[in-house]
Amino acid sequence: MENGRWVETEVKVRYAETDAQGVVYHGSYIVWFEVGRTEYCDVAGYPYARMEAEGVNIVVSDLAARYRLPARYGDTVRVATRLAALRSRGCTFEYRVTLPDGSVAVEGQTVHLFVDRASGRPTAAPEPIRAALTAFART
Amino acid sequence: MENGRWVETEVKVRYAETDAQGVVYHGSYIVWFEVGRTEYCDVAGYPYARMEAEGVNIVVSDLAARYRLPARYGDTVRVATRLAALRSRGCTFEYRVTLPDGSVAVEGQTVHLFVDRASGRPTAAPEPIRAALTAFART
Amino acid sequence: MENGRWVETEVKVRYAETDAQGVVYHGSYIVWFEVGRTEYCDVAGYPYARMEAEGVNIVVSDLAARYRLPARYGDTVRVATRLAALRSRGCTFEYRVTLPDGSVAVEGQTVHLFVDRASGRPTAAPEPIRAALTAFART
Amino acid sequence: MENGRWVETEVKVRYAETDAQGVVYHGSYIVWFEVGRTEYCDVAGYPYARMEAEGVNIVVSDLAARYRLPARYGDTVRVATRLAALRSRGCTFEYRVTLPDGSVAVEGQTVHLFVDRASGRPTAAPEPIRAALTAFART
Repeated sequence: MENGRWVETEVKVRYAETDAQGVVYHGSYIVWFEVGRTEYCDVAGYPYARMEAEGVNIVVSDLAARYRLPARYGDTVRVATRLAALRSRGCTFEYRVTLPDGSVAVEGQTVHLFVDRASGRPTAAPEPIRAALTAFART
Repeated sequence: MENGRWVETEVKVRYAETDAQGVVYHGSYIVWFEVGRTEYCDVAGYPYARMEAEGVNIVVSDLAARYRLPARYGDTVRVATRLAALRSRGCTFEYRVTLPDGSVAVEGQTVHLFVDRASGRPTAAPEPIRAALTAFART
Repeated sequence: MENGRWVETEVKVRYAETDAQGVVYHGSYIVWFEVGRTEYCDVAGYPYARMEAEGVNIVVSDLAARYRLPARYGDTVRVATRLAALRSRGCTFEYRVTLPDGSVAVEGQTVHLFVDRASGRPTAAPEPIRAALTAFART
Repeated sequence: MENGRWVETEVKVRYAETDAQGVVYHGSYIVWFEVGRTEYCDVAGYPYARMEAEGVNIVVSDLAARYRLPARYGDTVRVATRLAALRSRGCTFEYRVTLPDGSVAVEGQTVHLFVDRASGRPTAAPEPIRAALTAFART
């Protein structure tokens, strides 16, 4: 698999997400990455809540973000997410947050490990999850 | 004006909004009230960002919430908001957050003051804002 | 028991807790109430984490806050908390957040229910918890 | 300057900072980095609020974090921060969050730009700020 399709979702900036500089707080974009990831799994047909119900947690092992332009209260931004890599024991998501005029506000990446809910230990992703995500990313 | 129309919007629960009890953190609903208030002003035709651009801040003076049932990650809840009162120098909003099955999760109320951005002092709401909100609430 | 002793703790305002009005976001104080509650239980000798470990969750059923003055980034505020009531199946905490000059920023109250972790149902607080909190509040 | 001294501060985990996996939400550590940065500037004798008052904002341009072990409610973690680089128009901070047993929970780095508050444009840091931070980092 190599850099599959993007899934997009909209986020309307909340006042709670801004800070005293008058723009969106840099930590808020990290939450939007999570919103993008959730949307991705929903659209791919394997909601994250279902993974958890089946005994698999996905935890974050690495996070990176590059900030280019600030979003503001009043903006509705677009969060585009794709599954950049899927390995036996983990995966990598990429994100691009764009402003209403189409310019890029923030780009980022998160690396994840699959963890068995019961034991708390890293595990290989169950085959149905891998199959669903792979099939979707390739379409 | 007496308890005008409700405006509804959907909120998909974010993982960031949950806590270690496995449900939505009680403080997250307060942010959802703000989401509801923003939606209300947008639908009423006077977005809050426009009020600020015209020199008026709306600040919170009182907040109350009653928690009945917990929302969870995986839920998309509905936030209904109405303008319960509009006074010369302030207003009151009411909220009702409902779960996917229609049951009420949380109800609440916020009381607000209009504040002049330049001076930081309480002020009467400009007539165009009052007129727009009143006309909308009555429809 | 009638309005027992106050426990104080300091909170240094975080940039994340401010908003685009240049002051602390109103929802942030609700988190500070939780900080005060945690401190209260710690000082009273029965940390909340221990209650959970012993099978009791404390959930919020009602919340109220009155906002008087805004805190700002750069401020270290004081959060005073007391146990205003302790009933068989619940309790009430009161809060007062004060600015560096001693003036009151926000006052509030939360009402809680004791819930059995296993069943998720309301329960009476175990006697050791009740005894510890009552003894402390009276001193 | 080369990887100056560390400044440490303690953070008591808040319930609001946990998530439904029962541990601290990964985005909360980003806020703790900010707590570390604030503490650093305070201890270095040039509080960030003073920089802003003098017309300089510091904005985040890059963020990276590596997650090793989860912190939990009940933990008091230590956040160590150092100024890893100071350039004419920006700087880099490094962070290490450790658990009560001394093991590393999360490490990270943020890159910043100095921005003129009035114009919103990148600027060189005023000499007094550079001098204070450099002198401190070297001690």
